[in-house]
Amino acid sequence: MSARNSSDGLKVDLYELTMAAGYFQNKTDVRATFELSCHTMPENRSFLVACGLEQIVEYILHLRFEDEDIAFLKGLPVFQHVKNDFFDYLKKFKFSGEVWAMPEGEIFFAREPVVQIEAPIIEAQILETYLLSVTNIESLVATKAARIVAAARADGIARGVIDFGSRRAHGPEAGVLAARASYLAGCVGTSNVYAGKRFGIPVYGTMAHSWVEAFDSEEESFERYHAAFPESIILLVDTYDTVRSVRKIVQMPLREKLKGVRLDSGDLKTLSKRVRNVLDKAGLPHVKILASGNLNEYKIAELVKARAPIDSFGVGTDMVTSRDYPALDLTYKLVQIQEKNGTLKYKSKTSPQKKTIPGKKQVFRQYDGKGMFKNDVIGLATEKAPEGAQMLLRPVIHDGKLTEALPSLKAVRETAAVKLAQLPLDFTDIYKKQSGKVEYTKKILQLKTMEQL
Amino acid sequence: MSARNSSDGLKVDLYELTMAAGYFQNKTDVRATFELSCHTMPENRSFLVACGLEQIVEYILHLRFEDEDIAFLKGLPVFQHVKNDFFDYLKKFKFSGEVWAMPEGEIFFAREPVVQIEAPIIEAQILETYLLSVTNIESLVATKAARIVAAARADGIARGVIDFGSRRAHGPEAGVLAARASYLAGCVGTSNVYAGKRFGIPVYGTMAHSWVEAFDSEEESFERYHAAFPESIILLVDTYDTVRSVRKIVQMPLREKLKGVRLDSGDLKTLSKRVRNVLDKAGLPHVKILASGNLNEYKIAELVKARAPIDSFGVGTDMVTSRDYPALDLTYKLVQIQEKNGTLKYKSKTSPQKKTIPGKKQVFRQYDGKGMFKNDVIGLATEKAPEGAQMLLRPVIHDGKLTEALPSLKAVRETAAVKLAQLPLDFTDIYKKQSGKVEYTKKILQLKTMEQL
Repeated sequence: MSARNSSDGLKVDLYELTMAAGYFQNKTDVRATFELSCHTMPENRSFLVACGLEQIVEYILHLRFEDEDIAFLKGLPVFQHVKNDFFDYLKKFKFSGEVWAMPEGEIFFAREPVVQIEAPIIEAQILETYLLSVTNIESLVATKAARIVAAARADGIARGVIDFGSRRAHGPEAGVLAARASYLAGCVGTSNVYAGKRFGIPVYGTMAHSWVEAFDSEEESFERYHAAFPESIILLVDTYDTVRSVRKIVQMPLREKLKGVRLDSGDLKTLSKRVRNVLDKAGLPHVKILASGNLNEYKIAELVKARAPIDSFGVGTDMVTSRDYPALDLTYKLVQIQEKNGTLKYKSKTSPQKKTIPGKKQVFRQYDGKGMFKNDVIGLATEKAPEGAQMLLRPVIHDGKLTEALPSLKAVRETAAVKLAQLPLDFTDIYKKQSGKVEYTKKILQLKTMEQL
Repeated sequence: MSARNSSDGLKVDLYELTMAAGYFQNKTDVRATFELSCHTMPENRSFLVACGLEQIVEYILHLRFEDEDIAFLKGLPVFQHVKNDFFDYLKKFKFSGEVWAMPEGEIFFAREPVVQIEAPIIEAQILETYLLSVTNIESLVATKAARIVAAARADGIARGVIDFGSRRAHGPEAGVLAARASYLAGCVGTSNVYAGKRFGIPVYGTMAHSWVEAFDSEEESFERYHAAFPESIILLVDTYDTVRSVRKIVQMPLREKLKGVRLDSGDLKTLSKRVRNVLDKAGLPHVKILASGNLNEYKIAELVKARAPIDSFGVGTDMVTSRDYPALDLTYKLVQIQEKNGTLKYKSKTSPQKKTIPGKKQVFRQYDGKGMFKNDVIGLATEKAPEGAQMLLRPVIHDGKLTEALPSLKAVRETAAVKLAQLPLDFTDIYKKQSGKVEYTKKILQLKTMEQL
C-alpha cells in the first residue's frame, strides 16, 4: 500500500535491479527521461482518466532498500559477480530526480505521457514496475467508473454509484486502490472500510443475506437490525422473495425509520417498478431503492432508459476489475538521455508494432470557444505551448522533493468531474467509440523521422 | 500482504462490521457455517485450481482490530448507537473457530466449497471480504496459469513458462500474489523479486529495451551487459531488428557465454525459426530462445503447433489478470447455524438465479481404475465417504489454531502437478470446455427440496 511498508524496493521485476547494477558500472553520470503512457486505446473506451499519482509519489519519495532486502539480492546467483559498491549504493538509495505528471483526474489518450521521470538513469529505471502496476489498476478503474457513473445519470438525474467490489478485486490491496479510483471518478462512496479510513472516502453498507437467514424469519431479522441501528436503515429484500419482502416491511413499525431497500438479484427493471409501487401505495414515497447485482455501465444504461425507479446503484466486479478490459496497455519507455557533458540523445525502439517516439515531451490541450475539449498536441517539453493551450504535464517532484503538496482526494475528484464535463457528449456516450484527436508538433515529427539506430 | 500489516481488520466491506455489531447484540451464542465456493464455472475453463489458502490462514490467525481502527469505526455515523461493549469485543477479537479447506493445488468445480468456516457467527461473518478477494486473485491466476503451462507443453516438450506480469497486475500486491499463484500452477519462476524473497520462487530476468537504447550501439549494450554479468547471459534482441541483432551477436566474443536470446515482439513463429537458424549455423545450438510479448494459452498453442523453436515463454498481462475472465464468481454463503441448545438449522437463499444449497458439506472425489478423475459427490460433512472416494475438505484450523503446519509452496506446486495430471485430457485441452461431473448425495438433495423459508 505504502512505500513505507517493508520490502517495497523488491516489488520490481528482477531486470530493473540487474539493469541498475549494470548502469552503476557504466552510466552513473547519465540522466534519462522515461515516459509512462498507454500504447493503444482500449476497445470500448473513448478516454482514460489519470489516477494513481498520489501512490506513485509516495512510493518515489519513500523508496529505500532495507538491509535484509539487499542481503536477499546479494544471495541471488545473477548478482554473484556484482561488487559491493553497488549494494552500498542501494543502501543509500534515494530518488533525486524530477517527476512531471498529469494531475489526477485529468483525461488522457493513447501515446500521451501521463508520468514523465527525469533522473540518473539508474533511479529512473528502478521505478518502472511499481509505477506501471499502480497506474494500471487506478487509471483502469477510474476510467471504467467514469463510464458507469455517466450511465447512471444519462437522463440528467444524479443517481449515486457506490463501489461494492472489494470482494472481487484482485486481492485486498487492489480493492482499496479500486475504491480510491472509483471515488475519484465520481462514485459517491465505497463499501471498503479501510479505504474510508485511509482516504476519507464515505463508506456505505446495507446488510448481508446471511443476516436475514440467521434469524428464524425475515421480519425478525429486519426488526433486530432496526434495534441495532435505529436511526437509518436500508433493508436487503431479495433473500427469499423481493416483492413479498417489501410488502411485509411496509406493515412493520420500523417503516417509520426506513430509508431504503436494496434489490440484489432478479430482473431489476420489473422488480424496482413493483417495489416502488408497493412503497408508494404504503405512503413511503421517500424510501429509496438501491440496486446491485453484477451491474455495469450497459446494464445501468438500460435500466435508466427503461425508467426503472432506482435511486442508486451498487457496482462491484465489473468496475473494480474493469471486466471487459482488465489491463491497460501501459509502457514505461526511455525517450532521451543526457550525458555528463550535456549531450542530448533521443531514444526510441523500432521493433515492429512497438515503435516509440523519442524526446522529453509536453502535452498541450486545446479547448473550443465553449471550453470543451478540442484536441491535444504532443510536443517537446522545450516547445512553447500553442496559443491558449493548457500544458497537461506539471512538475510534481523536483530534485527528489515534492514541489507542493498534492491536492486532496476530494479536490482531484472535483478535477475529474470538471475534466469529464469538458468532454463532448460523444466521448461519454458509452455506446460510442471516439478517439481524442492527438497531433504531434513538427519538431516531434522530425525527431520521429530522423531517429535512427 | 499479511494480516500483521496495519488495519487488516478494516479491509472488509462495512456490512461485515455492522452485521458483527448486530450479531453481538443478538447471536453471540450461535455458531455458523459459511462456505466459499464458485457459483458458476467461468467460460473457457474446464477446471479451477485452489490457491490462496496460505494467505487466508495467515489472515485468520493474525486478524486483530487495532485501537486506531476501532476509533475510526466509532466515529462512523452508522455506529453511533452501538454500545462500547461491541468495541471492547473487537479489541479482544481472535478467531476461535474451525476452518476446513481444499489443499492448495487441488482441482475444484463450481458449487464445491473450497473453504468452509465454522465459528461463532460474528467471527465467521467478518472474514468474508478478505477471503473472497484473496481466493479470487490466486485461484483465478493459478487456473489461467495451469492452462498456459499446459499449452506450452502440449506436444510433450517441457517448455518453461515464466511470470513476467507484475507491471500489469492490479497493483503491486496483486503482482506478488499472481507470481505465487502462477508458480503454484506450474510456472518455473517469476520476474517479481519480492515474490522470490517472500515465497522462495525462482526469479528470472533478462534486460530492458532501455538498456539497449541507453548505449550508442546495440553491440556496446550487449558487451557492457556481459561485462557486468559474465557468467550467464540472455540478450534481448528485438529493440531494433531481431534477426540482424542475432547475426551481430554470433560474431561477438560474448557468444561463448551466451545462454539465450529473448524475442519480445513481431511474428514470433517466423522470427524464432530465423533466429534458431542463425544460431545453429553459427554453431550455437545450445543457445535457447525465450519468447514473450502479449502471450496467452492460445497464442502459445499455435506456436507449439507450428513447431516454432521456442524453449521457454515469458507471459504477463493475460496470465496475471486472467484477461479473458478476470474475476471468479465467488460467494461466501451461510449454510447452517447451530444454536446454543444444539439445534441445527439449515440455511439458504432462494433468490432467483442465486439459490444456495444448505448444510455443512464435504466433497468426495472418485477416481477411475487408472487414478484419473472420475467425478465428485457433494455430501453433508457428516456423511460417510463413498467407497474409495477421497475427502477434499480437510481440517486446517481447529479452535482457532492451525492443526498442522501448511505444506511449503514447493510441496503444493507438486500437489497441483499431480492433480492436474489426474484430469482427463479433455479438461486440460484449452480448446475444449468440459464440466467436471458433480453430483449431490441424497441427503443434500433432500435438504435442498425441503428447505423452506
